[in-house]
Amino acid sequence: MLTKKQLIEFSDEARKNYLDHISIDCVVFGFHEGQMKVLLLQPHDEKKWLLPGGFVMKREPIEQAANRILKERTGLDKIFLQQFYVFGDPDRAKFHSDLYKDTLPDHENWFSNRFLSIGYYALVDFFGVVPQPDQFSETCTWRDLDDMPELLLDHEQIFKTALDALRLQLNHQPIGYNLMPREFTMPELQKLYEAILGKKLDRRNFQRRILGFGILNRAEQPRKGGAHKAPYLYSFDLENYQNALTEGFRGGW
Amino acid sequence: MLTKKQLIEFSDEARKNYLDHISIDCVVFGFHEGQMKVLLLQPHDEKKWLLPGGFVMKREPIEQAANRILKERTGLDKIFLQQFYVFGDPDRAKFHSDLYKDTLPDHENWFSNRFLSIGYYALVDFFGVVPQPDQFSETCTWRDLDDMPELLLDHEQIFKTALDALRLQLNHQPIGYNLMPREFTMPELQKLYEAILGKKLDRRNFQRRILGFGILNRAEQPRKGGAHKAPYLYSFDLENYQNALTEGFRGGW
Repeated sequence: MLTKKQLIEFSDEARKNYLDHISIDCVVFGFHEGQMKVLLLQPHDEKKWLLPGGFVMKREPIEQAANRILKERTGLDKIFLQQFYVFGDPDRAKFHSDLYKDTLPDHENWFSNRFLSIGYYALVDFFGVVPQPDQFSETCTWRDLDDMPELLLDHEQIFKTALDALRLQLNHQPIGYNLMPREFTMPELQKLYEAILGKKLDRRNFQRRILGFGILNRAEQPRKGGAHKAPYLYSFDLENYQNALTEGFRGGW
Repeated sequence: MLTKKQLIEFSDEARKNYLDHISIDCVVFGFHEGQMKVLLLQPHDEKKWLLPGGFVMKREPIEQAANRILKERTGLDKIFLQQFYVFGDPDRAKFHSDLYKDTLPDHENWFSNRFLSIGYYALVDFFGVVPQPDQFSETCTWRDLDDMPELLLDHEQIFKTALDALRLQLNHQPIGYNLMPREFTMPELQKLYEAILGKKLDRRNFQRRILGFGILNRAEQPRKGGAHKAPYLYSFDLENYQNALTEGFRGGW
């Protein structure tokens, strides 16, 4: 929790630099070798956690704001970012108002304003990323999806909406570039899909469907090694991948 | 164009009632018997046109604001509304600033503020809808998609983004309830899809795919009439339709 002096300072600074009523919340999905995690922050003196977020500067495009916020937390640039929903319940920021009700009246506390939050999700390889807490937080860390703590505000809803949007995206857009090594086997790619969907997939159906999208190239030589039957290696066909990102997969109407 | 007095009055009223920096723009797609139109407004003394839009009241949920705006223009309630994107370019409202630069300085003109616009699209049967212009507009009318006038601001981009989102939706969600009569033939439903996609579809593929979604019931008796071969009648299976709306079609991963 901030002191009264800090809260006044932050409110003054925020009024000067940021657009009123608008915030950004990011659901950063991290992947590595079939594991899936999400980036969370624990505020000072709080048991519950928050998604990384921030505000939009007066003259800043919103995509740029989302990129800036993610860079501050992860050090990463040029992350795949997808706007997925705006959360606009009038009471969603009641938490901040309640938290500081004995410190500062609502009209002086910028954070107790009504905020519409624009949700972005991002997909990154969490290997090598050292998360940085913001000034309001004790820690910033990757958490397993099956070990999620309780979240503050409406961040549980934001997280779930992002996961639904990501799963839906698997049906009409490619995924995996920047998350997989340059060459990978079919079971390695299947693990990525299984992590996102939270369920096992049939090996043959997966292979048939993913090859049908036309975004993979198969290397001529199978992977070398001691295995009895060496698996084939695949890489993304970046031109087809990019087309599918903008136009959706073939097989639409 | 507003007079200086009107602009001051509207600015004062807006500051009192609406959230700063946030607007809503609606792309209302209208359908009837295979035709597709979009609802547009022509502001007073302007050649170009605008999408219907408005602002969010201080304590109003954003979905409610979008519904209120649509009701004001169309008289319709409980419209299918889908949030699809937020348009946040810092210069998108330059038009308002330029329009009134000789009338009122920017800091007094509420409309020359930066606005992030939340885009919603809606699907309605345009038959029987009498569009109502807002106070800034000369006319409000349905325009054919192949007879679109030039649009002001970034409304061309908003319109195109909405059309892309709607076309994408056809791949994973059902469409047509409230747009089709209670019972319809397969060619009638195909015409709706063709209007949205802007292209002809193969009759057999359409039938196979749409039946595969499991959202249609076929009536036992073909339509009566003089035709040599009477067509079968279909209606939506509302339970499956509703499930598919929330969960997406079977046949995902």
